[in-house]
Amino acid sequence: MTDEKQGQKKESNIRAVIEPNSIAVIGASRNPSKVGYSVFKNLIASGYTGRIYAVNPNAESILGVKCHKSVLDIPNKVDCAIIVVPAEYVNDTLEECGKKGIKGAIVISGGFKEVGEFEREEELKRISRKYGMAVIGPNCLGIVNRKKHIDSIFLPMYKMKRPLLGKISFLTQSGAVGSTILDLLGESNIGVSKFISYGNAAVLDESDLLRYLREDKDTSVVIMYIEGVKDGRKFYEELRKTTLVKPVVVLKAGKGALAAEATKSHTGALAGDYKVFQSMLRQAGAVEAECLPELFNLAKIFIQPLPKGERVFVLTNGGGEGVLTVDAIEKSGLKLAEISAKTRAKLKRKMPPHVVVGNPFDITGDADSKRYAEVLKEIVKEDGIDAIIVITLFQTVGLGSEVVNTVMEADNATDKTIVSVATGGEYTQSLLRIIESSGVPAYTSPSEAIDSIAKALWYYRKRRQREGEYA
Amino acid sequence: MTDEKQGQKKESNIRAVIEPNSIAVIGASRNPSKVGYSVFKNLIASGYTGRIYAVNPNAESILGVKCHKSVLDIPNKVDCAIIVVPAEYVNDTLEECGKKGIKGAIVISGGFKEVGEFEREEELKRISRKYGMAVIGPNCLGIVNRKKHIDSIFLPMYKMKRPLLGKISFLTQSGAVGSTILDLLGESNIGVSKFISYGNAAVLDESDLLRYLREDKDTSVVIMYIEGVKDGRKFYEELRKTTLVKPVVVLKAGKGALAAEATKSHTGALAGDYKVFQSMLRQAGAVEAECLPELFNLAKIFIQPLPKGERVFVLTNGGGEGVLTVDAIEKSGLKLAEISAKTRAKLKRKMPPHVVVGNPFDITGDADSKRYAEVLKEIVKEDGIDAIIVITLFQTVGLGSEVVNTVMEADNATDKTIVSVATGGEYTQSLLRIIESSGVPAYTSPSEAIDSIAKALWYYRKRRQREGEYA
Repeated sequence: MTDEKQGQKKESNIRAVIEPNSIAVIGASRNPSKVGYSVFKNLIASGYTGRIYAVNPNAESILGVKCHKSVLDIPNKVDCAIIVVPAEYVNDTLEECGKKGIKGAIVISGGFKEVGEFEREEELKRISRKYGMAVIGPNCLGIVNRKKHIDSIFLPMYKMKRPLLGKISFLTQSGAVGSTILDLLGESNIGVSKFISYGNAAVLDESDLLRYLREDKDTSVVIMYIEGVKDGRKFYEELRKTTLVKPVVVLKAGKGALAAEATKSHTGALAGDYKVFQSMLRQAGAVEAECLPELFNLAKIFIQPLPKGERVFVLTNGGGEGVLTVDAIEKSGLKLAEISAKTRAKLKRKMPPHVVVGNPFDITGDADSKRYAEVLKEIVKEDGIDAIIVITLFQTVGLGSEVVNTVMEADNATDKTIVSVATGGEYTQSLLRIIESSGVPAYTSPSEAIDSIAKALWYYRKRRQREGEYA
Repeated sequence: MTDEKQGQKKESNIRAVIEPNSIAVIGASRNPSKVGYSVFKNLIASGYTGRIYAVNPNAESILGVKCHKSVLDIPNKVDCAIIVVPAEYVNDTLEECGKKGIKGAIVISGGFKEVGEFEREEELKRISRKYGMAVIGPNCLGIVNRKKHIDSIFLPMYKMKRPLLGKISFLTQSGAVGSTILDLLGESNIGVSKFISYGNAAVLDESDLLRYLREDKDTSVVIMYIEGVKDGRKFYEELRKTTLVKPVVVLKAGKGALAAEATKSHTGALAGDYKVFQSMLRQAGAVEAECLPELFNLAKIFIQPLPKGERVFVLTNGGGEGVLTVDAIEKSGLKLAEISAKTRAKLKRKMPPHVVVGNPFDITGDADSKRYAEVLKEIVKEDGIDAIIVITLFQTVGLGSEVVNTVMEADNATDKTIVSVATGGEYTQSLLRIIESSGVPAYTSPSEAIDSIAKALWYYRKRRQREGEYA
């Protein structure tokens, strides 16, 4: 096959690997301590509705599924192979996949470039190229595709939650970081579309996968954890095209001179590289997360409509939280929205005398859910407001859990950005989870909410500006 | 009584109010929707072992406790009155407390200065002065004293957790912010000594209470939420004396011009004030928290021994988390510790070939708890290390929950600063809670852990420098 043809084939095969109708797990195992067992078990447990085949020359059946000696023995067509055999057998296995006409593979097995086995990785690339196969990995955690009910992550489900179906997709170079974020998303009721751990990126790299996610209609925001980019120019091009269509949030790790020193390669170039990388992100219209918690916070903000301006309204039943929110607004460059005289008068009539109509609007600690709803119902209709922060001090006696419905109804009634803020233990967190499952992101502090809105507004403006340039 | 005498009496009475041997709840109620019911019920439920008296002219008994018509009818001595009667009766009630010889009161009732009732608040001050009574409040949440099993917080226990007994004390001007932090501490297994919500600070202000906590041997770190300080000079003096003895972490709210604008008092002076306040904090050797999450993170770091220098060792079973930690170290000004050649050689013998001995020390995703323990056992003995970050990716198949014991044993074996880092959902969080209950603070991201250590080191150095000046 010519290089160009192979490239096109690989391209069209990415989709088949991430959204396959049939999967063969090569290296499926009966031994519960083996990765080949966990992968196979989790794939079945996740409810995948396509055909699943097990390949293991030494077993008759695994978890009730008949075993084949080799992929070549499978009588039907197979879209995707998940490979979990020891490193020394991976390339022979991949060669068989090519012969069988399998479109591509997810190579979970480690033991390649990352341990100095460069030739083995080169061989993997050659085989992939020969058959035009799309390969994710090696040395990766695999993928989660919630819509197709595919879960090839070998971490036990009791140790790591799996997220609901949603619109966030996540590309990660590190399986470890990836799994912790996936676990957090699962805990938070924030839905995920695709999760792709791409490990060594021998064949498909971050740019290829980003392009796939740009075109994926089930993905509305992409979050990425990147340590190093294979081809800076290629990545920049894919990134800038993607941010015109959907937000991309990037956490770059391995930023500076200390990281270089730690790895005993003190070239001084790395620190410089990060500055370049950072301005490249900005130029490409991508949002940078500075640390893991911020990556998580920013992923969530983009499940809301984008803020179209900087005018924020703050509703709270705790005065201190209102003050902290104003501090965060000032620091972020956002502004407090003005409420119209009409609405102001209307609300004044509805509130008890000790409540002052303002922004932040502190309905005070004795407020019940009804008072909360009365304000929010008026505010969602106001023109001069771009984003609304609903702070709920759930700990008070008066505020019932039904305020959760009020927040969700407000979200349905408007296309303003709405975020929820509440700080506290189990009771508070359980109510936040309900709010979050309805598409309103929940933050545990005013500063996290405000910083996220400010970055979403930056994204919105950058995108509008670029759309203008292209128009 | 002369002013001086009254002052001395008030001073000696603070202790009686926060550590009373007998409490009268004035305004105790049989009606579960009333604050007077919640306060009384929570006081009983918290297991207070001193004498409790109920005062309510309209009831025979409340929750099985006989009611008195007035405090003057109580036959025994009473140390502290908790007052929850409507605002218009507070001052008459306080007068009776004075006559009865009660040492002081916690006035939970609102309806004073905060709603424009300045004269009522002045009258409260006069009565307090007349009898030399120590008064906390009015318009406050009250106190928690874990050692004495006192809990006068009226928020329901099912909505808001109460923390274990520990060494952190918390002074807060805002009841709302106070209760959320208390709830978080309760959720996290981080122990508290005293929690004091001081509301309007009519009599006892933040400086008086800080002085009390400085002298309190059950308090080893003080955290404060402050919106405004009554007497800047007095606060500065108390603060600088306190930081020579124990760390003080301060979150200042209401920082800038927007806050001023929001309250329609656009003097422009407020923003300037914050800069002054900030440099005052630094000068006084107090640690500033910039937002609510940071206040929580910093409170926790001080349950550990102070770092004596900047050399950090990072142990991880997740490579990506190691890289993120190095990034945070570089940003913070801390340094990666060097491991001695001897320990390096010893560890090399114990590790499988694919594990590279270094710092960060990535024992890789296939590590079990034994490998984790082998490294940590050697590292706690190393001279060239000031702080140890133990990162646990609990989601991996190999790492058993017994690694929690390894971390706790390491903490017992050393006086280096040890902090734990793990990101994830329920399973991870439940193990972190166990670690945390043993006195090792747990962070959910590398950056939070590193930033906290850096500020603790700043505190240590500042204190050493000042000790040198005074020596």
